[in-house]
Amino acid sequence: MNFDLKHYIQQRRETVDRALDGYLPPTDQPPETLHCAMRYSLFCGGKRLRPILVLAGAEVGGGGESVAVPLACAVECIHTFSLIHDDLPAIDNDDLRRGQPTNHKVYGEAIAILAGDALLALAFELIERCRESAPSDAVLDVISMIAKASGTFGMVGGQVADIQSEHIDDISIEAVRAIHERKTGALLAASLLGGARLVGLSGAPYDALAEYGRQIGLAFQITDDLLDIEGDPELLGKPVGSDEKNDKATYPKVLGVDRSWQIARDATQAAISALTPFGPEADPLRALALYMVERDS
Amino acid sequence: MNFDLKHYIQQRRETVDRALDGYLPPTDQPPETLHCAMRYSLFCGGKRLRPILVLAGAEVGGGGESVAVPLACAVECIHTFSLIHDDLPAIDNDDLRRGQPTNHKVYGEAIAILAGDALLALAFELIERCRESAPSDAVLDVISMIAKASGTFGMVGGQVADIQSEHIDDISIEAVRAIHERKTGALLAASLLGGARLVGLSGAPYDALAEYGRQIGLAFQITDDLLDIEGDPELLGKPVGSDEKNDKATYPKVLGVDRSWQIARDATQAAISALTPFGPEADPLRALALYMVERDS
Repeated sequence: MNFDLKHYIQQRRETVDRALDGYLPPTDQPPETLHCAMRYSLFCGGKRLRPILVLAGAEVGGGGESVAVPLACAVECIHTFSLIHDDLPAIDNDDLRRGQPTNHKVYGEAIAILAGDALLALAFELIERCRESAPSDAVLDVISMIAKASGTFGMVGGQVADIQSEHIDDISIEAVRAIHERKTGALLAASLLGGARLVGLSGAPYDALAEYGRQIGLAFQITDDLLDIEGDPELLGKPVGSDEKNDKATYPKVLGVDRSWQIARDATQAAISALTPFGPEADPLRALALYMVERDS
Repeated sequence: MNFDLKHYIQQRRETVDRALDGYLPPTDQPPETLHCAMRYSLFCGGKRLRPILVLAGAEVGGGGESVAVPLACAVECIHTFSLIHDDLPAIDNDDLRRGQPTNHKVYGEAIAILAGDALLALAFELIERCRESAPSDAVLDVISMIAKASGTFGMVGGQVADIQSEHIDDISIEAVRAIHERKTGALLAASLLGGARLVGLSGAPYDALAEYGRQIGLAFQITDDLLDIEGDPELLGKPVGSDEKNDKATYPKVLGVDRSWQIARDATQAAISALTPFGPEADPLRALALYMVERDS
């Protein structure tokens, strides 16, 4: 496989950023502060990994990626909402995100809470817009998938489990994995599968993609845990060591660094194996799987 | 018109409460605390006004109300999410709601923020379920309406404008009205119209219902402002005078109590007039319009 992932990511980031700029409420309409706060965190240098998975899912499903652009923007809104709320003083109390002051540090807690709320509501408004070029029933399937992946059996529930897992010394690796699957894995997988569903993918190829999604979610989160130990704070845009400081439930805490890297790499290989039914149209996904464990931020 | 509103409300409340109990995640599944927190505020004695408007909208649109039950539950989830977040220390900092300690007083700020988030996500999961008995395109219309009514040009934007209007002495009545329309009116109207849209109402009757929705939204919010001055704290379940204490932008602040009551009553009459195209099937809505200004909580 000879695939220029850097170029691929760069191109899709530009597509998503342009579309987001058009979808987000303008900063010269009231309440201006709210709109500035929403844009501040959304345009703060995110990797756009979830939107890229949406577009790659649509592509591997045989559709044009333009069908899925509103969904790509929606999942980034949901991801950004979760970061704004997680950073709040009452939750993780973080001052820096991607090298910039966190939303509540700039706009205050009230606006940060409400900017997160507005981004979550906007996400569903955006997914509905996929109806312009996708069948209504596929759009409703995606709304259900994304809502479930965001809520109590997905991201939000995972965040609660994550908070509650702090300072538990004998936590099992199964419990850590369950937290990771909800907190990070669910929305990553729903992004990919949502893109594929919009263009009508179903049956065995869809199931193969679901398995790929589970494995890259795992590889992504373990790498996140490891970067918090071994990463470069400059590249990460935040201090390292916060998981240890907060005594979070992580793979390296339970299994150690070396074993955790091994599991992340195994998950990457399992993800790539899951793509066997696909041809070159899945090359972006193969390259993205490797990127999950090779990234430095 | 001889209509037993009390019985009507009681019956629909029971329908909605039963359905909500089935839709909300069980408290014996993890994260248990999150699920308890979601249920705590949802089953804390709410009037269920928005769900009742959903069901009345479906009824006046000529459909059976059962079609609209998931939507009725969804708007109550959204309303409850907004109350939990508005009560937070960083926003209105309220300790009591409906005579009970507010969510963050019982579960802490982190869980309260995340319980609100989970309720908002759940709402869209529930609306999607209307597809079981309503056309997919109608369900998507409703998702778009509810998302807009909840977000930056609806409820959340109204809450920000409300916060920012505190301590402004020369605020115009147009500005107060615009805040009210976003903060309260948008979701009330979207509830009613969402119910009607689900069962296929369109054209002139739909427009008449939209006018009714605008007018009852106004009457409801002005009455809310007035109850905060003249109401009985026992019946309200919270102390009165909080608007004055926080120097909020309200109708009585700008126009005085008597003139505000007059406008609320005029809005009620305008709402009832808007229903002229409808027959007895709109009697619940006529009675509900009167209830907006006659309620004591």
